[in-house]
Amino acid sequence: MIAYLGVAAGTVSGVMAARRKNMDAVGAVVVAFLTALGGGTLRDMLLGRGPVFWIREEGYAYLTLILAVAFFYSTRLLRFSARSILIPDALGLGVFTVMGVEAGLTDGTSWFIASLMGVITGVFGGVLRDITCNEVPALFSKDMYLYATCSLLGAWLYILTTQVGGMSALALPLTVVFIFLLRLAAVRFNLSLPEPKHSWD
Amino acid sequence: MIAYLGVAAGTVSGVMAARRKNMDAVGAVVVAFLTALGGGTLRDMLLGRGPVFWIREEGYAYLTLILAVAFFYSTRLLRFSARSILIPDALGLGVFTVMGVEAGLTDGTSWFIASLMGVITGVFGGVLRDITCNEVPALFSKDMYLYATCSLLGAWLYILTTQVGGMSALALPLTVVFIFLLRLAAVRFNLSLPEPKHSWD
Amino acid sequence: MIAYLGVAAGTVSGVMAARRKNMDAVGAVVVAFLTALGGGTLRDMLLGRGPVFWIREEGYAYLTLILAVAFFYSTRLLRFSARSILIPDALGLGVFTVMGVEAGLTDGTSWFIASLMGVITGVFGGVLRDITCNEVPALFSKDMYLYATCSLLGAWLYILTTQVGGMSALALPLTVVFIFLLRLAAVRFNLSLPEPKHSWD
Repeated sequence: MIAYLGVAAGTVSGVMAARRKNMDAVGAVVVAFLTALGGGTLRDMLLGRGPVFWIREEGYAYLTLILAVAFFYSTRLLRFSARSILIPDALGLGVFTVMGVEAGLTDGTSWFIASLMGVITGVFGGVLRDITCNEVPALFSKDMYLYATCSLLGAWLYILTTQVGGMSALALPLTVVFIFLLRLAAVRFNLSLPEPKHSWD
Repeated sequence: MIAYLGVAAGTVSGVMAARRKNMDAVGAVVVAFLTALGGGTLRDMLLGRGPVFWIREEGYAYLTLILAVAFFYSTRLLRFSARSILIPDALGLGVFTVMGVEAGLTDGTSWFIASLMGVITGVFGGVLRDITCNEVPALFSKDMYLYATCSLLGAWLYILTTQVGGMSALALPLTVVFIFLLRLAAVRFNLSLPEPKHSWD
Repeated sequence: MIAYLGVAAGTVSGVMAARRKNMDAVGAVVVAFLTALGGGTLRDMLLGRGPVFWIREEGYAYLTLILAVAFFYSTRLLRFSARSILIPDALGLGVFTVMGVEAGLTDGTSWFIASLMGVITGVFGGVLRDITCNEVPALFSKDMYLYATCSLLGAWLYILTTQVGGMSALALPLTVVFIFLLRLAAVRFNLSLPEPKHSWD
């Protein structure tokens, strides 16, 4: 259920990017699809899982299509500021990360690979959105306030808590809350990764 | 057979885009490949079909390579206007859409997913072409005159006619002609999707 | 072993591109990953091989991650000129090409498809790097001095020598040395593919 909130956040973010580039409804739908479902799609392809998740569970595809069209034509729904997207987006980051880690562990990958699958699922939709909109991915700038880092730390928290006896039922909510709070804290306090000392070009 | 016409149209369109960006022969071949075969390649990857179609049926790859080099170095062949590419391209859109829907139905997807596979096969080659040429995909502008919309409507026409007793043999030609004519009409009469009422940024 | 040198060259090239775009450490890691491992990843997806190679052999992923972070934060290690990357890069091109051809032959593709797999493995990482950095791929300009051409010729040399009795043990070193020398010669003597005679736009 909470996964649909992440999909909704990705859809809003995709439609907003499409509007900024003066795309039409087709552009809005495709960019929304890439943003909301692109990370999990890439994960499934990398793992060689056969049909990707939104072909197996069509609810994701339906939701994205309907929401994208509704958001695109709605003016009221879209009086969103970048700020108001932050909450569902941070929740989505947490949920998508857990789903990615789970996919890796289910397929028998190592913890290391599973953590990468978590991060890819969590953040790559936004990268595909920006590439399609002909921009350098925002994820790669220091103004992104630890977006990928929150996902990576959360992935390891999830992996470790599922190993502790009696903790595994708590792993999902604990990780989602952890990523959610860490992400909001990073935005609030302008946290970013350390920069290299000297520029060299 | 008619599929090769679509591949040829994609190749011409890819070589033209490469020339516009002053690419060399390698660029022309790669961009032609992405334009002509990229949509079907993505479809096969999403469906988890094992080797993609042009590895299983090498004729597509041979044709694209040979045509791309020939077009790139030929000056006579390339006195094409954007106008003269419209006819084979509209035919290709029809054929690729049907091939994509068929791939989905063959793999046992729902009608909804099969229609998406049709559209992806029909239009995504051009999206990959534009991304690789560092431009916002033309598909997403309203000047594209219902390109993706023709594909989507045609996909549903194909799905429905294959369900009607005695109609299934007609589904292929009917759909190709429908998409072809609808696309030409959209270009002729400058049709585009409705725009949202108010701008919000 | 020599494959790791190619991965290292790709990582350096990716980190350099990320720095040029003022990306942070996340950007450097992702772009390095795409550059070093992207070509082989695409090859595995096209061949429908199940989990891609760096999920099956994690050493590649570990090496890329560690090197990318080290290069990004190191100032001393990165007094590389574009010139000093040429040697490991040309070696990497040779090794990656052979690995790609081998993957195709192992999966029972034709020589033609195997040669394409070699070229894709050899060169597509750089294409993904440039697309992600929002630039027209350098591979497609004539200043690339036969980069893809070296890979293609080497792929065919490898295929043919593996067919000659008693030569197959030599095929790997022979091909790597051939691609390496041809690439350096192309750079030294400014070789490029012939251009089309007349411009047509």
